[in-house]
Amino acid sequence: MASVTLGLLQHACSRDPAANREKTLTLARRAAKRGANIICTQELFCSEYFCQSEDYANFQLAETIPGPSTEAFQQVAREEGVVIVASLFERRTAGLYHNTAAVIDADGKLLGSYRKMHIPDDPLFYEKFYFTPGDTGFRAWTTKFGRIGVLICWDQWYPEAARLTAMQGAEILFYPTAIGWHPREKAKLGADQHGAWEIIQRSHAVANGCYVAAVNRVGREKPAGGDGIEFWGQSFVAGTQGQILAKAGAKKEEILLASVDLGKLDDTRTHWPFLRDRRIDAYDGLNRRFLDQG
Amino acid sequence: MASVTLGLLQHACSRDPAANREKTLTLARRAAKRGANIICTQELFCSEYFCQSEDYANFQLAETIPGPSTEAFQQVAREEGVVIVASLFERRTAGLYHNTAAVIDADGKLLGSYRKMHIPDDPLFYEKFYFTPGDTGFRAWTTKFGRIGVLICWDQWYPEAARLTAMQGAEILFYPTAIGWHPREKAKLGADQHGAWEIIQRSHAVANGCYVAAVNRVGREKPAGGDGIEFWGQSFVAGTQGQILAKAGAKKEEILLASVDLGKLDDTRTHWPFLRDRRIDAYDGLNRRFLDQG
Repeated sequence: MASVTLGLLQHACSRDPAANREKTLTLARRAAKRGANIICTQELFCSEYFCQSEDYANFQLAETIPGPSTEAFQQVAREEGVVIVASLFERRTAGLYHNTAAVIDADGKLLGSYRKMHIPDDPLFYEKFYFTPGDTGFRAWTTKFGRIGVLICWDQWYPEAARLTAMQGAEILFYPTAIGWHPREKAKLGADQHGAWEIIQRSHAVANGCYVAAVNRVGREKPAGGDGIEFWGQSFVAGTQGQILAKAGAKKEEILLASVDLGKLDDTRTHWPFLRDRRIDAYDGLNRRFLDQG
Repeated sequence: MASVTLGLLQHACSRDPAANREKTLTLARRAAKRGANIICTQELFCSEYFCQSEDYANFQLAETIPGPSTEAFQQVAREEGVVIVASLFERRTAGLYHNTAAVIDADGKLLGSYRKMHIPDDPLFYEKFYFTPGDTGFRAWTTKFGRIGVLICWDQWYPEAARLTAMQGAEILFYPTAIGWHPREKAKLGADQHGAWEIIQRSHAVANGCYVAAVNRVGREKPAGGDGIEFWGQSFVAGTQGQILAKAGAKKEEILLASVDLGKLDDTRTHWPFLRDRRIDAYDGLNRRFLDQG
C-alpha cells in the first residue's frame, strides 16, 4: 500500500486529564472516520503542559505503559483499523519518569514505545525535572500502513535523531510537540522562533528523503500562573523534499489530514541521492561534545 | 570584533577561465570597497560548470593550490584587508583532482584548504568523474574577522558536515555552490528543488546556532550542448535562527552584502541550547551506512 493518510490531532487542553483523554479519543475516532490511516496525538495530550513549573504534584499525572491510555487507544486502533502514535507521561517505576510515545498497530497491538531522548530545560519548559532522558535509542516500527518513527518535541532540533530514525527505515517521522511563545516575546521574537521550528523539521524531510509530521497543541495555558505559554499550533506534514503538504492554523483545534505516497521515497532518494554519498568514514566526531581546538 | 560584513560574489561565467578569474578578482575588490570583511566566491568560479559531461579535456582547467588563483586572491586579500574563500578545481598530483576551497586571511596568508567531502553524481552533475572525495575532513579556521568553516555545494545536504564544522568553532559556514534547474524540469519541479536547497542550509544555521552563507552562480550554461543548466542564483545569508538576512535574485549578477553579529551565537545558543543537550552517547549509528533490520 503506497498511499497513506495521516491524521494529526491539534487541540487545546483543559485542567482535567480524563476530559483531555476523552477528547483525544473522540478526535482519533473522528480522524479515522475521515480516512486517516495513521493518527498522531500532540505531545502529552492528557494534560496541560505542566512543565511550566517544577511541582512534585505533577508526577501524579503520569501513568504506566501499558496502562489506561494505551488500552483506550488500542481499542480505538482495533475498532477503527488505524495506527496510533500516542504521547504520554510515563511512570516507569518509583522515581523514574519519561516523556514517551506509544506506537499501536492497526490491529490494536502495542508495538512498543519511544522515550524522548533530548530533554529541554528553559524558562517554562522545565522538562529535565520531570523526564529522565530516554534509553530506548532511536526507533522505527513496521505498521500496517508503513514503517514509522517517532521523535518528541525537543528531539526535533537534532538532525542526528532524524537521521538515526530514518536509517532504521522509517518512511514517516512523527513529532508530537508542545511548543509556543512566551507571550511577552511573541511580537519581537515570535516569527523567527516559529520559523526555526518549521525549517528544522522540514529539513529532516529533505536530508532523509522521507515524510515528516509535526503535531502541536493550541491555546494559552497558565498552569503555574504568570503569562503562561501561547502554543502556536501550525501542525504540518512535509513531503520528501521538505515541501509543506498540509498545515493547520495557529489557534484553531483541527484534525489535519494529509495523504502521502510512500513510493515517493525511492523516487526522491534516487534523484537526490544523499544517503548514497554520506561520508561515514568521516563522521566519528559526531559522538563528541565539541571538537576543541588547541 | 563582533560585527562582520560578508560579501558573496554571485555572477555568470564565460568560457574563458582567465576572464572569469579577472571578473571575480574585480568583484572581490569591489565587495571590499563596499565594506565586506569576508568574501566568498561561488563554486568553481574560474570556469563554466564543466561537470555537465565526462570530458578528459576538462582536467586542464585545474590548477595547483597554492597556484595562480590563490596568489592572485592573496594579493587582493592583503591589499584590501579582507578574508577570502575561493573555490577552485585543484590538481593535487597526476590523476588526483579535488573540488577545493582555499581560505585566505586578511593579511594575505593562505590558511589552508578544504576538499569537498561529499561528491555528487547525477545527470549533468558528473562530479565523481572529476573530483576525488576530500580527505581533509571538516575544518574551520580562525581569521581576522571570525572563525569560519567552508563546505562545498553537495556537502550542503548533509547535516553531519555542518555539525562537524560548527563543532570546531566555526561561527559562519560558507557554501560555495553551483546548482540550478534542468530547464525542462523547472516548471514542474523547480520550486520544490530550490525550496529544499534553501531549507536544508537554513536548517544548518538553526541546528548549530551559527550563520550560513550560500553563494551560487547565475546564468544558463551549456558547455556540453543540450539544454544545459539554468543556475538559480539566490545566494543568501541566514541568521543564527535560520532567518534570511539577505538574498540575491535568481538571474542577476550581484555582490550580496550582509552584516552579521558574531555575539549573537552565544545568545542564540544559550536561549536555544541545542548543543548542550546532544545525546552523544546515542549517536554511534551515524557512522553506519544504514541500520538494517532483521
